[in-house]
Amino acid sequence: MNVVSSIKEMRGISDELRSSGKRIGFVPTMGALHEGHLSLVDNARRDSDVVVVSIFVNPTQFGRGEDFEKYPRELEKDKRKAEFRGVDYIFVPPDREMYPEEPLTFVEVEKVSQILEGEFRPGHFKGVATVVAKLLHIVNPHVAVFGQKDAQQAFIIREMAKDLNFDVAIIVAPILRETDGLAMSSRNIYLSPVQRKEATVLYRCLKLAESMLKNGDTNLVEVRAAMIKLVNRESTCKLDYVSFVDPINFEKIEDGGLHTEILALIAARFGETRLIDNLQMKVGKKPG
Amino acid sequence: MNVVSSIKEMRGISDELRSSGKRIGFVPTMGALHEGHLSLVDNARRDSDVVVVSIFVNPTQFGRGEDFEKYPRELEKDKRKAEFRGVDYIFVPPDREMYPEEPLTFVEVEKVSQILEGEFRPGHFKGVATVVAKLLHIVNPHVAVFGQKDAQQAFIIREMAKDLNFDVAIIVAPILRETDGLAMSSRNIYLSPVQRKEATVLYRCLKLAESMLKNGDTNLVEVRAAMIKLVNRESTCKLDYVSFVDPINFEKIEDGGLHTEILALIAARFGETRLIDNLQMKVGKKPG
Repeated sequence: MNVVSSIKEMRGISDELRSSGKRIGFVPTMGALHEGHLSLVDNARRDSDVVVVSIFVNPTQFGRGEDFEKYPRELEKDKRKAEFRGVDYIFVPPDREMYPEEPLTFVEVEKVSQILEGEFRPGHFKGVATVVAKLLHIVNPHVAVFGQKDAQQAFIIREMAKDLNFDVAIIVAPILRETDGLAMSSRNIYLSPVQRKEATVLYRCLKLAESMLKNGDTNLVEVRAAMIKLVNRESTCKLDYVSFVDPINFEKIEDGGLHTEILALIAARFGETRLIDNLQMKVGKKPG
Repeated sequence: MNVVSSIKEMRGISDELRSSGKRIGFVPTMGALHEGHLSLVDNARRDSDVVVVSIFVNPTQFGRGEDFEKYPRELEKDKRKAEFRGVDYIFVPPDREMYPEEPLTFVEVEKVSQILEGEFRPGHFKGVATVVAKLLHIVNPHVAVFGQKDAQQAFIIREMAKDLNFDVAIIVAPILRETDGLAMSSRNIYLSPVQRKEATVLYRCLKLAESMLKNGDTNLVEVRAAMIKLVNRESTCKLDYVSFVDPINFEKIEDGGLHTEILALIAARFGETRLIDNLQMKVGKKPG
């Protein structure tokens, strides 16, 4: 595995790979790699000859008071994990190359960037869309893979790629979960043992919503109330939101009965650790 | 010369040219080609094997009440001119492919997009930066050429390409002028014979500023006053602005004495026709 630590070198490698007819698969990450990321690598490989993983903790997508400073950085571990998973190139651009000066240019996907995560993390998706645009220009992949864990981010990147005619296929790969259901996340390591246990409630409340909707309980006010009740009964976390959107256009859904597929999303803070999760579910008919 | 009228076809041609080792030069235009555009073609050719000219009157860069509807469209003439000048591909994407639905994604270069043209044409540069990003993704050129006539636009595109790591060289080519000094522009054809004659005052007042600054008259309040006086004496146009910026960072200059090079910019309306012009000038020392 090659470690690439300059933009220029990455471009050169990418140009060479392309002109020798190789397909490039790309997985952009912020490091602290876990099995979820590595499953994205597997997805990237399925459709390409060479897999590039970038590790860059992007300052512009963190808000004030967020965890940019303490975000886990474990490059040596990451390299070993990536190498073991068969990654071909790990791209670790230095901050001073990514942002040599105060950047003036931003990419923004309007509307959808303002809701849910965007409401609780103002400017977050502007930072995300911009850094992904930069990385796509540098790595120039045929395929880029994002995780469904960050469902809204994945939607926004797809929208950006389509609207701006990026010549890349965007693949969104399923969430990987711990055996007790907790969605894998680099932030899970922040959790205390008690919080770690409590955090499983997020997935259980998504599953509760799934079972209610499958049974034709399409009143989302009631579904949300049941989810919130469960979360509050079984944890001390603070909910940021429980929300339902149309997975096609990410618009908020009020009436579950008008849809056949719903994406339920949840965000909660366990102490200082903010976790998100989501689950796409089918809407059934009420029996009888 | 080949006329390319779909995004997919353009991408295919571009991929093929690249994989056969050809360098692609690109000149994005809104058509109504004049000698100024054709000089950009010459510039593009200098550094590439194949020249692509796009013709797309981009709706998102026109404000309400601007001249989008009546902007000159003369595709057949344009084709002949381009072919005669040796253009290899003319890319004419249909509106429905460029904007198949209400776009949500925008590229914006902050700060510099708000002043001068941005102040008089709100949203203009957001539309420009976004459509240029799209076209660069579709045509995927090695070199793209813009005209200095639209100095602020050229600066913004350069900034965007740098900030977002576009893998393209941006060339800015000098203004071409009619023999009486009027900067070539597709909008000149709107002018009545009287307006056409009066419009030469724009260049003359830029030359007046140049001569004042060369002589060490660095009080820009006085320079501006002299320019405005000349314009008002010799035309009936309405000035939008007369402004001085640092060509390096496009920041407004108050004190001419602190600079060695100044870019003077002017915008004025002759009836309903809005013209812009600019000239970069050296600052001299006051004699004696």
